Parts: sequence; C-alpha cells; structure tokens
Amino acid sequence: MNLDKHTRALVDHLSAAADLDSAAAVLHWDQQTYMPPGGVPARAEALATLSGLSHGITASDETARLLDAAGDPEAGSDAEAVVRVARRNHERATKLPSGLVAETSRATALAEPAWRRARADRDFGSLVPHLQKILGLQREAAQHLGYEAHPYDALLDRYEPGATKARLESMFADLKRGTADMVRAVSAARDERTAPLRGAFDEARQETFGKAIASAFGYDWGRGRQDRAPHPFCINFGGPGDVRMTTRFDPDRLSPALFATLHEAGHALYEQGVDPAYNRTPLAGGVSLGIHESQSRLWENVVGRSRSFWSHFYPRLQDAFPEAFGGTSAGDFYRAINAAAPSEIRVEADELTYNLHVVLRFELEVALVEGSLDVPDLPDAWNAKMEEHLGISPTDDARGVLQDDHWAIGFFGYFPTYTLGNVLSVQLFEAALEAHPEIPAEMQRGEFGALLAWLRENVHRHGKKHDPEALIEQATGRPPDTAPYLRYLREKFGELYDL
Amino acid sequence: MNLDKHTRALVDHLSAAADLDSAAAVLHWDQQTYMPPGGVPARAEALATLSGLSHGITASDETARLLDAAGDPEAGSDAEAVVRVARRNHERATKLPSGLVAETSRATALAEPAWRRARADRDFGSLVPHLQKILGLQREAAQHLGYEAHPYDALLDRYEPGATKARLESMFADLKRGTADMVRAVSAARDERTAPLRGAFDEARQETFGKAIASAFGYDWGRGRQDRAPHPFCINFGGPGDVRMTTRFDPDRLSPALFATLHEAGHALYEQGVDPAYNRTPLAGGVSLGIHESQSRLWENVVGRSRSFWSHFYPRLQDAFPEAFGGTSAGDFYRAINAAAPSEIRVEADELTYNLHVVLRFELEVALVEGSLDVPDLPDAWNAKMEEHLGISPTDDARGVLQDDHWAIGFFGYFPTYTLGNVLSVQLFEAALEAHPEIPAEMQRGEFGALLAWLRENVHRHGKKHDPEALIEQATGRPPDTAPYLRYLREKFGELYDL
Repeated sequence: MNLDKHTRALVDHLSAAADLDSAAAVLHWDQQTYMPPGGVPARAEALATLSGLSHGITASDETARLLDAAGDPEAGSDAEAVVRVARRNHERATKLPSGLVAETSRATALAEPAWRRARADRDFGSLVPHLQKILGLQREAAQHLGYEAHPYDALLDRYEPGATKARLESMFADLKRGTADMVRAVSAARDERTAPLRGAFDEARQETFGKAIASAFGYDWGRGRQDRAPHPFCINFGGPGDVRMTTRFDPDRLSPALFATLHEAGHALYEQGVDPAYNRTPLAGGVSLGIHESQSRLWENVVGRSRSFWSHFYPRLQDAFPEAFGGTSAGDFYRAINAAAPSEIRVEADELTYNLHVVLRFELEVALVEGSLDVPDLPDAWNAKMEEHLGISPTDDARGVLQDDHWAIGFFGYFPTYTLGNVLSVQLFEAALEAHPEIPAEMQRGEFGALLAWLRENVHRHGKKHDPEALIEQATGRPPDTAPYLRYLREKFGELYDL
Repeated sequence: MNLDKHTRALVDHLSAAADLDSAAAVLHWDQQTYMPPGGVPARAEALATLSGLSHGITASDETARLLDAAGDPEAGSDAEAVVRVARRNHERATKLPSGLVAETSRATALAEPAWRRARADRDFGSLVPHLQKILGLQREAAQHLGYEAHPYDALLDRYEPGATKARLESMFADLKRGTADMVRAVSAARDERTAPLRGAFDEARQETFGKAIASAFGYDWGRGRQDRAPHPFCINFGGPGDVRMTTRFDPDRLSPALFATLHEAGHALYEQGVDPAYNRTPLAGGVSLGIHESQSRLWENVVGRSRSFWSHFYPRLQDAFPEAFGGTSAGDFYRAINAAAPSEIRVEADELTYNLHVVLRFELEVALVEGSLDVPDLPDAWNAKMEEHLGISPTDDARGVLQDDHWAIGFFGYFPTYTLGNVLSVQLFEAALEAHPEIPAEMQRGEFGALLAWLRENVHRHGKKHDPEALIEQATGRPPDTAPYLRYLREKFGELYDL
C-alpha cells in the first residue's frame, strides 16, 4: 500500500490490535477443534484479555489522535479506505461503554450453554430470562451506537455496513413475491427425491472427496487446512496466508459434510484472495457477512448444486462410493441435491425455501428489538410465522424457535446477511458469466480458473477497501438487485419441478 | 492462595501478562503441529506482538510500583514467593529493551521453519544468516541482563535460576570422570543388542501403546492431548488444565516415539500437578528446565528403562507387536533398550553417553557466546567435538549440527539443563524410594500411584514457589549432587555389561 506518513502511523499503531485479533482467532479455532475439556477456564481468561487489549488499542486516545492527524485522504485511495474503516471501528469501540461490553460478554457466555440445555430439554421457558437480559443489552447497545430510522439498523450495521431494515424489508418482499407460487408447487416429494443421499459413507472417503473439490476450486492447502469441529466454520489468522476450514461428517448422509465443505471453501477462497498488502491493517479480511456469504453460497449452490459441476464430479463420486451411487443416475442425483419443500430446519433447507426461514427470523428480531414482541411470546410468534411463511408447524421448540443459537449469543441483526449472500451470489455469478462465457464449459471439465480469477479481481483482493454496496456496484455495474437471483431460482426450480 | 491486598494487586496486574504468554503458547503449539507453511510470516508478527505486550506489562512502571507496595512479605509465604519471582521477572524484563525482545521473537519464528528446511536439505549454509542474527541478539541480551563471571551465565540463568558456567563445568567433569571407563568399555555391540527394536511398527499401534503407558503413569487426557510434531515437546496453556504433548513416529523403529512419549509424559505430569491456585500468577508452571528435565528423565529412564517397569509392560508390548517381539526374551529386550555406545543423535543416545552430547553442545555454545567460534565454522567444530567426546564422526549435518532446533529458536544456555535433569532425576527417585519402598513392587504391577503422589507432594504442586536448589534440598534433604546418579549408572551398566 502506498500510504502517506500519517496514515502509515495510524496503521502501525493499529497493527498490534490486528495481531491480538489474529491470536484470538487461533485460540478460538483450537477451542473448537482440539482443546481438551480442562482447557475451558484458562482459555476464557486468555480470550477476555486478548479482546480487552485489542479493544483498548482501537478505542484509545492515541488512535483518535492519529485519526485526526490522518485527516481526509484522497477519495478512492487506500489511505482513504484505511481512515474510513479505522474511524468506524474507533467510533464503534468508543460508543459502547466498556461495562456494557463486559456485561454482554458475560450474559452471552451464560446463555450459550443455557440454550444448549433448553434445546435438549425442549424447554424454552428456561431460556427466557437469558434472552430477556441479552435483548435488553442489545437494545441498550443500539441506543449507544445510534441510528436514523430504527434501532434494528444499529445492530445490523455491525455485520453489514450500510444495510437498513427498510431496504431488507423490500428485498424480502421481492423474494417472497417472486417465489411464492413455486414454494406452493413443490412440497410433498422431498424425502423420496433425497433417498439416494442416504446410505453408508466412509468418513475418510468423504474427506478425500471434499478436499479434492476444494482443491479444484482453487483452495490453496499450503495456506490452509481442514479439521473437524462440531460446527463447520472458516477462520483466518492474520491474512491470506493461513485460512482454515472445519467440517463434521455424518456416516449416514453425504450432503451435510459435502456441502459444508463447498460452503466453507467459498469463504476460504475469499480470505485467501485478499491482497496481502492489507495484512495487519484495517482493510484485511472480507468486508461484510453478506459479501462473505455471497462467496460461500456461490460455490456451495450456484456452482456446487449445478448440472455443469456434477457432470464432471458425479462419475468421480460414483467411483468413491460405488455401493451408494452405482445405481443412481446423474439426473436423479441432481434432483436429490436440489429437492425442495417447506421444512423445519433452516440449515437443512433447500435454495428455494431457505430465505423464508430468514424472513421469519428477521421479522421476529425486529419486533423484539422495537419492543412489539416480548420474549415469553416468542414460541407462539415463531409457530405462527412458520405457518404464514412456510405453511407448516414445527414438531416442537427444539426444531422450532430453539434451533439456532444466534439470539442466545447476542447476534441480533445477523440472519439477514444469509439472504443477502444468496441474492448477491447470483448477481456476481451472472457478472462473471458475462465477462467469461466459458465458465460453464470449464465447470463441466471440473475447472474453475476463469470464475476464480474474476472473483479474485472483482471481489476478493479488495478486502475491506470498498463498502459492500460500492463493491457490488463496481463488480457488477449495478447496486444489489434481487432480479438475477429470482431469475436463477425460477429457471432452476421451474425445470426441476416442471413448473 | 492467601495473599495480602498489595500482593493480590500485583498478581491481578500481572495476570494479563500470564494470559498473553498462554496465548503465545497456543500459537507456538499450532506452529509446530498444524500450521500450514503460508502461516509463517503472520504468525511471527502475532508472536512478536504478544511477547512485546507481555514484556511491556512485566517491565511496566506500574509493576515496579506494585512491587514496591508489596514490600517483603513473610518468609516462606506464597506472597513472598510471588514477590520474589515477580521481582526477578521484572528486573529481567526491564534489563531487556522491548525492541530486542520483539526482534528475537520475530527472528526465531522465522528461523524455526528455516531450520526444518535446512535439516531436510542437509544445507547448514541456508541457516547461517538466521543463526548469526539470533546469536547476535543473544549476545546483546547477555550484556543487558548482566553477569558476574561470563556472559553465558546470563543466558543460562533464564532457564536455571542460580546455575553458572563454572559449576556446570565442574558437574560435567565429575560425570566424564565417573563414566569414562564405562564409555570405553561399551561401544561396538550396540547395533547387535538393539536389533530387536528394529522392524515394522504400525504407527497407530505405537500411538495406542504409548498412550496406555502415559495413562498408567497418571497423565490426565481430560487436561491434555498428544499430537504429532517434528520435534517432541510438552507445552501448557495457562495452568494444569491444558497440558499437551507431541511426538513423532518412525515406522521402522519402536524406541524413538515410545521413549519420547514417556519423556514428554514426565514433563506433562509435572505441569498437570502444579497447584491450580497458582494459575495466572508468577508461581504457575515448573520452576526451571533442570527440574522439569528431572521429571521427564525420571519417567523416561529411571522408570521407563528399568526391569521392574518392563516386567509388567513387556508382555503387553509383545501382544501389541507379536511379529516383532514374539521371539525376543524380556532380558534381550531390556538389554536392547539400554544398549550403550557412542552415537550421533542426542535424543536417541543411551543414558551412559547422553551427557557427552550435552558437554559438546555446552562447549560450543559457550564458544559462540564468548565469540571464540563463528557460526559458519560450527559444522567443523561440531564434528571435531564429536571425535573428542564420543570418538565418532557424524554421517552428515542433518545427523550432526542440524539435529537440534535449540539454537535456531534462541535457546542458548538450555542444553545443560538436560544433564542437570539426569542428575536430579536419580536424586529425587532415591528420595521417593526411601519414603515409599513399595515403589518397585508397584512398578512391577504397572502401577505408579506412590511414586506420582510423592512427586506431586514434593515437587509438582509447588510450581515456582521454591527456587530449584531449595526445592531439591527440601525434597531430598541435600543440595543437588552427582553421587546418586553416578552410583545408578555404575550399577545399571556394570550389570548390563559385566563391568
């Protein structure tokens, strides 16, 4: 990066915070992969110290002084981006009283295990006081962070700079309107279509197959690895040089680990592609959760659930699992991995109905934040929304309101970024296709060079230099737009279900 | 711990440094077990920042102020020990400029992978600039730390408070004199005696067998784990709750991984046995490398190469590897694992010749530190010392000067603690036997409860409360003494070789 001396001084000062955050990421990774149970208490102390020190640097008077000295660098320059992002981080860090931050950390640390127990016992009541506490803290945080139109905007902005409740409502309305007829038309036959995906799947062979696809995508194993963890995730340690994935294997079902690997590989390709010149600066790493999710969904769904992709990989999958797939045609396999129907669990939903799970959560969390819904009424409200959006009733709260941990860990405003990612994944893929019409033919050969190169050039390398909307507009020539995504869904599921 | 309010304030202030150190330990562990090659540069930066911040807290004016306020607590109290250790750490830290600390951390983080490559390529030349850089930083550190007689004393004191070059020279002279006739007498027949240890050893079965012994010793897997690394080590993260071991397996030879596991288990038992009340205080962890090594050597050699131990475990080893050991008697196996002869590799040396490897390294590092030997001349000097002390020449640098990573990671003054550990292991074992004459009978049943309980009570639980010499005197009734160790060697190898 070519920085003036004031911005350089700011970056140098903040690099220690970046190092502390990257050390904390290693500790988090270890906690979820290899740490023995006895490590829990000391790990909590170490993480609290690292985040406290990092927060202290970001919020410090010295950071304020260096931001002032840096002034307003030339628009479009790296320096301008550094100052914009560093200023946002500094303001966010100073707006929240440290007592509120500590109390939130404590409350969520207690609520997470409470959520596990509540889900296991199907006992929402036991979680109510925790959620009330956390909701109260989130509402207080929204007041401190500030907003123009709605307190929810303040919470959302933490994950997706620039996004607002009003614009999300319009996006969700578009999506509902554009898919309602298809959602009504698909439905009953999902179990039958997915039958080929159940069987006996040797874990080592699952792992080898998943890794081969990640390699074909362009994931660089010299700058990463894959380990096992209870929940799949992608994490990076101080830049694109060490970007790791985790997954978990189900010996009876192929899809969970396979698509989780493709999904996490999408996140990892993004992080591996960020310009290394941004290492240890405020511009390192992906810019927002929505853009990150656009990358994971693109590789998981737009690529990984397409006919082109499987025309190359299905024969290889049959070789890896001859007992399971010897008698299944490529067409039946394609229909199985794209079987659609309203269902209870978000993380297992198909592409067509997935966003309805998100609308439901979005509407409920907005109501909680603005105070029009009380925590004890959440299960009834959940079940009513399930009826309204998906036309089904959850078996019980464990498969209903208790299925996700987001609210218990204080992630209000996080869910919409999943749908934003879906929408943007297709908008970006269309733009890549326009620039490189050879992409589908490459995919049929199991090659992804043109696609990855386009994403690297237009999305990955920029890190946090451009805010999400500006990045999308620059990459696709248009602001975020639901039209490409709706066209994609109509074409794909129209063909799959003869609609 | 029962601390007055001043000492409590000191401990609270220093707890952040303890957390930073424990985070750094996780990063080191990861670097040597799972980190992909691309992670090297960012990891070096993160470690430099963590050690710089930790050093800053230890060296801070606030620490000085709190030390003054704590004054001189009652002799023998926890408070007195906290203040003594914290004061030593503070003095050491204020003597070293933080730039030197950070530069050392960065230089060693880069040199460690360089050492791995150099060893693999048998290319000492590629390591020379790294070693020159690190040696320069070590010599600078010695000047800052200060010393009475020799700059080497300043480096040594970091690992073994109170030890000096002069006293080590006298210890090494005792050992050389006391074993020279035996070293001359053994020699040629080692390969023949060790023949039963060569064969085909399935890695998974090696791992299972080694873990079973660690379990029998009393290693708690709920507070630790074992992973693979190029160099076996033990490391703990913020107290006795997470104490990990690593090892490496050779498919053709049983001994390296087996005895490395017993050795690292000895270190780990020590760390797992420290009083958890010392967590996040200056008293956490083993007191010195010499005492640490006394624990690893005790379990590896005094226990793990004894007849009593194998009278229980040899039949089990035969069950695990029937092809390899079906036709080997217990006596031949005992002679094989204790076969003695001058050899190239320190970590594979027998008990009788091991200390000669240490003398050699001690003499070379003293020469490097005082400037009478230059880094590029190290391979020739190494080979000459091998001739002098062991009467052999290394096959190549990988089996010579490049075999250990200590110098590449800045551990000058570390090697002598291995011999100190050998000496103390027998002194402690004799004291345990005196208190619990039933120990050999327990060992013959594969039980180690009395031995572990004695070590827990007299060594482990104290952490850093007592300085090494005081600890040994309190545990054994005498200061450190080579006599028990020499008696042990003469008796054991006299019998083994009819001397």
